[in-house]
Amino acid sequence: MKPVALYLIPNVVAEDALHTLSPQALAVLPDLRFFLAEDVRTARRFLSSLKIYSAIEGLTFQRLDKDTAYADLNEIMQPLLEGDSIGVISESGCPGVADPGALAVRWAHAHRVRVVPLVGPSSLLLALMASGLNGQKFAFHGYLPIEGQEAARKIRELERESAAKGQTQIMIETPYRNANLFLNLIKNLSAHTRLCIAMDLSGKSEWVRTQTVEEWRKHVAPWPKTPAVFLFLADS
Amino acid sequence: MKPVALYLIPNVVAEDALHTLSPQALAVLPDLRFFLAEDVRTARRFLSSLKIYSAIEGLTFQRLDKDTAYADLNEIMQPLLEGDSIGVISESGCPGVADPGALAVRWAHAHRVRVVPLVGPSSLLLALMASGLNGQKFAFHGYLPIEGQEAARKIRELERESAAKGQTQIMIETPYRNANLFLNLIKNLSAHTRLCIAMDLSGKSEWVRTQTVEEWRKHVAPWPKTPAVFLFLADS
Repeated sequence: MKPVALYLIPNVVAEDALHTLSPQALAVLPDLRFFLAEDVRTARRFLSSLKIYSAIEGLTFQRLDKDTAYADLNEIMQPLLEGDSIGVISESGCPGVADPGALAVRWAHAHRVRVVPLVGPSSLLLALMASGLNGQKFAFHGYLPIEGQEAARKIRELERESAAKGQTQIMIETPYRNANLFLNLIKNLSAHTRLCIAMDLSGKSEWVRTQTVEEWRKHVAPWPKTPAVFLFLADS
Repeated sequence: MKPVALYLIPNVVAEDALHTLSPQALAVLPDLRFFLAEDVRTARRFLSSLKIYSAIEGLTFQRLDKDTAYADLNEIMQPLLEGDSIGVISESGCPGVADPGALAVRWAHAHRVRVVPLVGPSSLLLALMASGLNGQKFAFHGYLPIEGQEAARKIRELERESAAKGQTQIMIETPYRNANLFLNLIKNLSAHTRLCIAMDLSGKSEWVRTQTVEEWRKHVAPWPKTPAVFLFLADS
C-alpha cells in the first residue's frame, strides 16, 4: 500500500509513446481511484490505453483546468482528507509544468498532504537536452505575444537578457502558429544567436536542429503543425 | 537497428532508483558501444547495474567534463563519423541539463549528426512539479554565490525578478552547503515569498515542502547532506 499523497503523473508528449513512461509512475497507478485532469475525456482515454484497470468506470475524475479557483479545491481534494490518494494527470508531459496542475500541489502543501512527483516525459526538458544550448542557465517563458510589434519587442528583450546572463530562453507556441513564431524569431534575433527548434519530441517524426539565425534564414521549410519547442541562446 | 545518432541517456537521481528510467532509454542501450561520461568509473558502474551487457569490457568510454574543450571533440566524436552511435551518460539526471553534456550536442548539431534525447529523471523538473510554484514561467540559475554579502545581493535580485515576472527561481547547492543556502534564503527573502525545498527526489528519503519564508523561519531542522533543489516564488 502506497502512502496517501497527491501523485503527479506524467502523460506522453507524442502519440503512442507509452515507452516513455517510467515503471515508477506506472507502479503507482493501480492503487489510485481518484484523478484530476484538465480534460476528463482524454485523461480517461490515456488511462484506458495503459490497460491497467479492469474497469475504468470505477475511477473518479474531476476537472482541474485554468478556470479552477483555489477555493474550489476544498471540495475537489476531499478524497485526500478521507484517506484516499489522488493522481493529477497532465494533458501532455508533467503536471505542474506549463500546465494548471500546480494549483492542486499548492493546496496539498498548504494542507500538509504529501506530494509525490513521478518521472516521465517533458517536451521542455527533452528540447533543452537536445538543443546543445546552455543547460546550466535557462528560463521558460511560455507563449510570446502574438502581435508583430509586441512580439518583436519581447524577442529583443529576451535576447538581451540571454546575452547578459548566458541564459537559454525557452518558449512554446500552439502548433498552427509555429511558422509565425519562427518568422518572428529569425526576423528579430541577431545573426549569430543560436536557435533550436525541436518538434514531435519522442514521436515518430521527432526532429531537432540548432543553428545560427543566419543559417535558419536560408531555411524556407513549410513548418508542419506539430507540437514544437523553440529555444535560443545569444552570442555573448 | 537504430539510426546513427548522439543519444542522451538520463541517469538515476537517487540511489537504486532504476525504476525511474524509461523503457525508451533502456531500449537504446543494447545497440551502443561508445559512451561519453563525466566520470568514466561511475558511468561504467551505472551501465553494469542495468545488467544489459554481457561484457562491459567491450564498451568504449571517453571522458567529457567541464574541462573538455570544443576542439577535443573532433577526436572524441570520431565513432559518429564512422557510422557508430554514441551515448552521453550524465552523472545524475539528464545530459545537457546542469551538466557538461551540452558541448557534445553542440558539436553534433554543427556536424549535422542526429541528436536523440531520451526520457528519464531530472531532479530540477521533479522539484518544479512538486513545488506547486509557477510552472508556466521559471528559471534555473545553477549555484548562487557562496560569500554572504554577494549571496544576499543575488537572492534579493532574483526575488525582485520573481515578483516582477511571476517567475519561479530554481537553484541547487552541493549537499554539504544546504544549510548555508537555506539560512541565506530565509534571511534575505521576504516573509511572504513561498520557498520550496525538495530533497532526495525519487529516493527512499524523498521530502518536499513548500511554505512561506515566514513559516520556514520557525523550522530549525538539522539539514541532511542530501542532494536538494531550492525554489522560490515571490508574492506579487
